[in-house]
Amino acid sequence: MTTIADVAKLAGLSRTTVSRVLNNHPNVAEEKKRLVLEAMERLNYVPNSTAQRLRNQKTDTIAILVPVLTNPFFAYLLEAMDTVATDNNLQLLVCQTRYDREKELNFLSLLKTKQVDGLILTSSENDWDIIAEFTQYGPIVLCNEYSELVNVPTVRMDNTEAAYEAACHLIEQGCKKIAYSYGEKKSSVALERENGFRKALQEYGLPLNKEWIIRNVYDMEDGREALNYLSRLPDKPDAVFTGSDQVATGMIIEAKKQNINIPDDLAIVGFDDQPIASIVEPGLTTIAQPIQQMGTKAMETMIEVILHKRNLSYHEILLPFELIVRDSTNRISFN
Amino acid sequence: MTTIADVAKLAGLSRTTVSRVLNNHPNVAEEKKRLVLEAMERLNYVPNSTAQRLRNQKTDTIAILVPVLTNPFFAYLLEAMDTVATDNNLQLLVCQTRYDREKELNFLSLLKTKQVDGLILTSSENDWDIIAEFTQYGPIVLCNEYSELVNVPTVRMDNTEAAYEAACHLIEQGCKKIAYSYGEKKSSVALERENGFRKALQEYGLPLNKEWIIRNVYDMEDGREALNYLSRLPDKPDAVFTGSDQVATGMIIEAKKQNINIPDDLAIVGFDDQPIASIVEPGLTTIAQPIQQMGTKAMETMIEVILHKRNLSYHEILLPFELIVRDSTNRISFN
Repeated sequence: MTTIADVAKLAGLSRTTVSRVLNNHPNVAEEKKRLVLEAMERLNYVPNSTAQRLRNQKTDTIAILVPVLTNPFFAYLLEAMDTVATDNNLQLLVCQTRYDREKELNFLSLLKTKQVDGLILTSSENDWDIIAEFTQYGPIVLCNEYSELVNVPTVRMDNTEAAYEAACHLIEQGCKKIAYSYGEKKSSVALERENGFRKALQEYGLPLNKEWIIRNVYDMEDGREALNYLSRLPDKPDAVFTGSDQVATGMIIEAKKQNINIPDDLAIVGFDDQPIASIVEPGLTTIAQPIQQMGTKAMETMIEVILHKRNLSYHEILLPFELIVRDSTNRISFN
Repeated sequence: MTTIADVAKLAGLSRTTVSRVLNNHPNVAEEKKRLVLEAMERLNYVPNSTAQRLRNQKTDTIAILVPVLTNPFFAYLLEAMDTVATDNNLQLLVCQTRYDREKELNFLSLLKTKQVDGLILTSSENDWDIIAEFTQYGPIVLCNEYSELVNVPTVRMDNTEAAYEAACHLIEQGCKKIAYSYGEKKSSVALERENGFRKALQEYGLPLNKEWIIRNVYDMEDGREALNYLSRLPDKPDAVFTGSDQVATGMIIEAKKQNINIPDDLAIVGFDDQPIASIVEPGLTTIAQPIQQMGTKAMETMIEVILHKRNLSYHEILLPFELIVRDSTNRISFN
């Protein structure tokens, strides 16, 4: 690895002079400049842009923290962010936390060490007071994830209201024993959805059997296992509200294997409206998240902060959702 | 932004002394060390790890270039790479090229500017002689993508053989007019698959109507459009070999809308064996790629180069595939 010192030695000049040439410093004699450039060429020396970035403290890179890339929700969110970033000559650094606190802290350090200009969190593993420490090093925007304690811009949809609407829909279809499944206990998104779900049950005076709450389900395989668990309960639910199209699809596939009729024996609601929701049969009733708008707004907000130097403290951008009704809950004809 | 110069000024010492303290240089008087640390604390100065990385020329970061994150093939490939990377205390920088040559060049520059220790290409947009230029700055490993000209380790499966086997399967099912769809013309993967497909047709003496070749199809929506195109041809094919489960699924969905019987009127083969292949009905016959092994092997190879300093020039790791037969091609009972 050739260094500035090597260039200086070959040119017979000081490191400071070489450094001045590299930085286009005005006070360098033409002859010295020539010697440095000649030496650089002979040594095939590449000015280290890490050093250059260090000087102007700009990386034109935004880190996006996502929990898993195999969940299409995050892939499509990144797609929307990338489109806006590209239009503004920024590049994305995609960081997969895999729901791991330590990994999240490592990636948050990218701000501290000036490797990125800003950071967007689409999920959070650590408590907000820990994450908040990093805002002193650069801008953070929350997208999808949310915390009552935050002092940074937040782009999200109202998960409480969406879950409430989905649960009311199941109740209106005649379901009385509704199970509930979710991924991460600590996630604000999961907590909001649970609140909305419980609110609907309360309003209609419906019970929530503890056995109908299923934790730590994330993907299709988890969905299959969850269906197996539910189908073996003595007091079986007649519907399930999942927080995920992936989980709901796994449940549908397993239910069909066991000749459980959907929605007659079990009505199922997903979340996200991923492509899979309209491919699986019966089609999956789900909440369409404003993924495109969320990704776009989050990146636009980041750009306002870093390119236009706007000092944005907490403000919330709340985007609309939509309940998409398909056959997985369409029980009216059966009642 | 506080700099070393600010710390030096407040401490009443030279920048060199401050720099020595930051680097734990042995020849610094304790009194000077104390003054520097005090000044750092008062100014809330954070040693810039970009500068630290600059010194030891290590980032513990590997860049992975993928064309699109919304294609689950790449999401699962990244998942496999990330597992190995995490076990070796490396972090991934995921770079989405979106099939764009300039974006790819920008990301390749991460090697030149020492922002990453190594780079894995899962797809390539530029010609190899252009990419090869960057190998002088750091290790490159190819995974999935392949070129006869490369001089770097390559982890892949035999796409020619896989396409040949899939085409032979369609022919054995009684199909005689087989259409072919692919994404990128320049991709080695697409070229190999086309070669394998043509080889099978040739061996069986079957024609390939030019109208049955569909270019630039990537996702489900493209698949629906392609099906519409094929269904309007005067000389309709009786089967289609697609290079993608996404495209094939879009075709199946559109075919069902048009009451085209699959596989009776049109047999369809996908590629990858993504989760979607067993969810869509009829189930999609496809080639199961060794995604898990490919991602693992590619990262292990990179680790051999950067952590164990092995000087790896070209060698090919060829991994096995499997033809998964489902109902989308099961015509035997219909003939």
